[in-house]
Amino acid sequence: MSLLPPKPTTFVQPATLCRELGLDVTIAVEAFQYTGSFKYRATYNLVQSIDHPSVIAASSGNFGQAMAFACEQAGKPCTIVMPNTSSKVKVDAVRSYGAIADLIDTSQITREARVAQLAENAPEAYIASAYDDPLVIAGNASLGREIAASGVVYDFVLAPVGGGGLASGLIQAFRETRYSARVVGAEPALGNDAARTLAAGSIQVNDREPPTLADGARTRSIGRHNWAVLKDGIDSIIEVTEDQIREAVKLHFLKSNIKAEPTGCLTLGALLASPDRFRTSKILCVVSGGNVEPGLYASLIQD
Amino acid sequence: MSLLPPKPTTFVQPATLCRELGLDVTIAVEAFQYTGSFKYRATYNLVQSIDHPSVIAASSGNFGQAMAFACEQAGKPCTIVMPNTSSKVKVDAVRSYGAIADLIDTSQITREARVAQLAENAPEAYIASAYDDPLVIAGNASLGREIAASGVVYDFVLAPVGGGGLASGLIQAFRETRYSARVVGAEPALGNDAARTLAAGSIQVNDREPPTLADGARTRSIGRHNWAVLKDGIDSIIEVTEDQIREAVKLHFLKSNIKAEPTGCLTLGALLASPDRFRTSKILCVVSGGNVEPGLYASLIQD
Repeated sequence: MSLLPPKPTTFVQPATLCRELGLDVTIAVEAFQYTGSFKYRATYNLVQSIDHPSVIAASSGNFGQAMAFACEQAGKPCTIVMPNTSSKVKVDAVRSYGAIADLIDTSQITREARVAQLAENAPEAYIASAYDDPLVIAGNASLGREIAASGVVYDFVLAPVGGGGLASGLIQAFRETRYSARVVGAEPALGNDAARTLAAGSIQVNDREPPTLADGARTRSIGRHNWAVLKDGIDSIIEVTEDQIREAVKLHFLKSNIKAEPTGCLTLGALLASPDRFRTSKILCVVSGGNVEPGLYASLIQD
Repeated sequence: MSLLPPKPTTFVQPATLCRELGLDVTIAVEAFQYTGSFKYRATYNLVQSIDHPSVIAASSGNFGQAMAFACEQAGKPCTIVMPNTSSKVKVDAVRSYGAIADLIDTSQITREARVAQLAENAPEAYIASAYDDPLVIAGNASLGREIAASGVVYDFVLAPVGGGGLASGLIQAFRETRYSARVVGAEPALGNDAARTLAAGSIQVNDREPPTLADGARTRSIGRHNWAVLKDGIDSIIEVTEDQIREAVKLHFLKSNIKAEPTGCLTLGALLASPDRFRTSKILCVVSGGNVEPGLYASLIQD
């Protein structure tokens, strides 16, 4: 079984944005990765690593597409549990890679319960978490190795934080390669469990999925495997308001010519939240993906 | 005087787009170039090469911004003649680089006449054409050298054609480097003077500036210096309808995660116009720039 390896990230230096912000910012754009987000780094590694004949995962977003694409190449049946309110674009994307989009009414059954149901009928299947899995973290680490190998020494690397899969992958890679950049997480203020977790020293949980624009960060908490890496590895977490997420989408559109999804804009949002902290630093912001509904994007850039 | 050299182009391989089209397409994205389009390649070379103490140019678009940025670095006064109907974003961009935006009422005076007026009062100024100038062609050739040096042998390189500055630069570079790719021009069907020029063997002129969405190709004819290169160098010109331009903007948004301006989408539009011609070829499409008004872009992606 030979899957297409993840594409190298695309480093963009947005001169006009830097001028506007008065900051030295480079962007690692993962919107050009297979299936349009960094998630394929994880699913590539996971699907290459397992012997299980099939995969089940819950995802309404980028992880589902990335898993479907990896499984298609491996010839493994793949079922993605999605809310029946998921947009047609996302459901169609999963199906275009030959996966089953299992649409559920989340007022009737939780995603976890539905995954458990499916797993009971397919005990040989691998149940994949979008973040809380060492294979996912190891997959995401490939981005960190590329940053370390870029020859540029950044002071800070900013990554969106939902479940913590990307940030933990970066930290793991920087440890392996003895790369000195500090990893800063950018999290929606509406669901600030990671900031509270770091302050408390133990995993804190949001009461519900935070209704943030950053749909890739609508997680109730970071994962256990992720926390094991983050607790001694992450520099800090910056909370980003919804207005800052909106502003960041628009700034990437106007000043960087980067089409980024709201979750991917958390990192620029963090610079808007705390510009003075980064005034004399060399900064790398990860734009984690580019997949966003046209209607939502149109409203954000015209705000 | 030392200007920032143009940034290397960004090669993107849009796997989802290729799958959708059934074509082997790579994109050379110039939206991440300084000032957001390939035009800085030309103005960088021009401003480095001249001894004149100031520059005057007519441009409502990317050339004006790129010239203003080059002149700012060189410390040369720069005047950009623009219609007073130009969008605020474009006028502000020119002014942000310290240039004078000379706004005219085009119902009262043509751009050429206004440039002539200004030139009379500043006889020492360099009067810069956006395309019809060997220094512009030589500047644009840097993109062709990068393509030739990429190590990939494309069968066809598609470039937007307005005045012919980019296509002639590519051809000149491919000749210099003995690179075998054939250059195909992509032109709005609404202003098909380049196609008619190629058929007639002499420069043909549109009756008026064609009212195409591709505002970078609203030219009445290709330039003389450009035609001197194109006449024996260009493979063919593909005419692209307005609907195909719209579809291409939307496809780049949905399938490539590339924010491209309508003129930059002429090349994908050409693939939509003539897909079968390219079915077994290795194709490079140049996206010449990314600067587009939010309102227009929002309407195009939601079409």
